[in-house]
Amino acid sequence: MTFEFTDSPYRVPFDGSFSVAAAQHGPEAPAKKSALKKSLKGEVKAIQELQRQLYADDRWSVLMVFQAMDAAGKDGTIRAVLSGVNPAGCQVSSFKQPSSEELDHDFLWRTACRLPERGRLGVFNRSYYEEVLVARVHTGILDNQKLPRRPEGEALWQERLESIAEHEKHLARNGTIILKFWLNVSAEEQRQRLLARIQDPTKNWKFSGGDVKERGHWSRYMAAYEQALNATSTPFAPWYAIPADNKPFMRLAVADILRRTLERLGLQYPTLSSAQQERLGEWESILLGETLG
Amino acid sequence: MTFEFTDSPYRVPFDGSFSVAAAQHGPEAPAKKSALKKSLKGEVKAIQELQRQLYADDRWSVLMVFQAMDAAGKDGTIRAVLSGVNPAGCQVSSFKQPSSEELDHDFLWRTACRLPERGRLGVFNRSYYEEVLVARVHTGILDNQKLPRRPEGEALWQERLESIAEHEKHLARNGTIILKFWLNVSAEEQRQRLLARIQDPTKNWKFSGGDVKERGHWSRYMAAYEQALNATSTPFAPWYAIPADNKPFMRLAVADILRRTLERLGLQYPTLSSAQQERLGEWESILLGETLG
Repeated sequence: MTFEFTDSPYRVPFDGSFSVAAAQHGPEAPAKKSALKKSLKGEVKAIQELQRQLYADDRWSVLMVFQAMDAAGKDGTIRAVLSGVNPAGCQVSSFKQPSSEELDHDFLWRTACRLPERGRLGVFNRSYYEEVLVARVHTGILDNQKLPRRPEGEALWQERLESIAEHEKHLARNGTIILKFWLNVSAEEQRQRLLARIQDPTKNWKFSGGDVKERGHWSRYMAAYEQALNATSTPFAPWYAIPADNKPFMRLAVADILRRTLERLGLQYPTLSSAQQERLGEWESILLGETLG
Repeated sequence: MTFEFTDSPYRVPFDGSFSVAAAQHGPEAPAKKSALKKSLKGEVKAIQELQRQLYADDRWSVLMVFQAMDAAGKDGTIRAVLSGVNPAGCQVSSFKQPSSEELDHDFLWRTACRLPERGRLGVFNRSYYEEVLVARVHTGILDNQKLPRRPEGEALWQERLESIAEHEKHLARNGTIILKFWLNVSAEEQRQRLLARIQDPTKNWKFSGGDVKERGHWSRYMAAYEQALNATSTPFAPWYAIPADNKPFMRLAVADILRRTLERLGLQYPTLSSAQQERLGEWESILLGETLG
C-alpha cells in the first residue's frame, strides 16, 4: 500500500483485539464545550482549504463511512465537519432500506454506484456495513435478498466480511482513501437523546418508534459491531471508534482525523509540462492581439 | 402553477423580449467590494438555515442551473453561495462532454438522472442547455449523437427548446423549483481573466487553450443564448441574466435570488398527527421503564 494512515487513540487495531466493552463513550478528561467548538472551527477551515487542493490535484478520492446506532450523531457530525467545504467537491449518500432494483444486485452494488470520483470527498451515511449489522441482527432481511445460495450460520457473515475487506483493498489500491467512523454512543446516552426527541416538540419530527424497538437488540448489535470492526479494520481502510456521548468532542475527533489524513496526501495544484508552458506564450499573444468573430 | 417566483431586475421577461446586447455586465452603480462580501456572508447564513428547513420539510426540491461562457465564474459562484450549506442536502453535478453511454440516450437523460431529490438543493454546472448552445455553434457535435431523424435548420433547435420547456414544466408541476442563471460576462472581461490564468503561475492549471478558441465564436454564442433564454424563461422556470464582470456583485445577486426564493416556499419542520402525538407518550413510558436486551 502506498498510503500510511494517521495514528489515533481511536483507531481500531488491525490484529482483531478490539473490544466494544472496553471502548470509550466520552472524552478521557473533562473537555470544555467552547474550547472544543473553537478547535472544530479551525479544523473545518483547514479541511475546506485541503479539499480545494484535493479537487485540483484530482488523483485521490476520499471516502468517509459512518456507521452507528440511531441518534449517535451521524447527521450532525457530517453537517458540522463538512458544512464548510465546497459542495461541488463533496458527495453525501445516505443508504436506507434498499429498493427492489438494489435488491436485484449483489450487496456492494448500490454503494459502489455512489463511490466518490477522483478529487472528491464522498460520505456514506450508513453503508454496505449494514449487511453485516442490521441484517445479522434481523436475519429475516436475508429472505428479501433473493440469494441463490446462503451459507449456513457464521459462514455467511465471514464471507460478507471478506468481500467487504477485499472490495476496500481494491479501492485503496486504486486511489480511494477510506476512513471509517463508528460513532460509539452508549445505551444510556441514546436513551436520553430519544427521550429528548419525544419531550422537545421541535425535535418530534426526528423521532421514530422503531429506534426504541431496536434498543431491544442492543447487545446483539454490539457483538455484530465488534466482529465487523475487528474483521475490517485494516492498514488500507482503518476503522476509528469515536466516543459519541459528547457531541462537540465527537465532531472534533472526526474532523481531526480527516484533516490529518488529507495533510498526509501531499496534495498539490497541478503544474504544466514544459511543452504546455511554451504554448501558454502563444495563447497569450493571440489574446493580446485578437479581434473577435 | 402553485409557486410564484420572486421578481428581480435580472429576471429574463417571459414575452421573448430579452436582448443580450442590452443586458448588463456589471452593477448599475459602483459597489464596494467589502460591502458586497459582507452582504454575501449574511445571505449565505440565511441560505444555510433555509436549506435545513427545505431538508426537513422534504416536499420541494430546488434546482439551480448555471450556464455561461468560460471563466464567467460558475465554479466560484457555486462555491461562494453554497459552501455554507450542509453537503448532505446539496448535490452539485458538472456536465462535460457526454460519455458514449450518455450519447446512447435522448439529450435530457443524463441530467434527469442527477435531478435533486425532494428536500435537496441540486446544482447543474452546465446542463441540457449545452444542447442548444455549444451544439448549435458547433453543429458537428450532432454527428456523434446518433440521431435517427434530424429536422432541417431551425426546426431542430425549436424542437429542442420546446422539449426543454416542457420538461421543466413537468418538473415544476411535481415540486421542483427551477432557478436558471446565465452569468453574463463581457468578452473583454473574459479576455482579462484568461490572460490572468496565463500570467499568474498559480492559475496556470485552470487555463485551457480551447477557451481562447471558443472566443472566435462569441457572437454566435450570444445569438444562441438570446434565443434559448427567450424561449425558455417561463413563469415556472425563469432565467436570470446575472451581470458577471464583477465577481462579488455576481455572487451576491445569485445568493439573493436563491434566498428570496427559499423564503417564498413557506418551509416548515414536519409536525406529527394527533395519532402520532399520542403514541409518543407510549414510547416515552417504554424508554423510562426499560431494561435492555
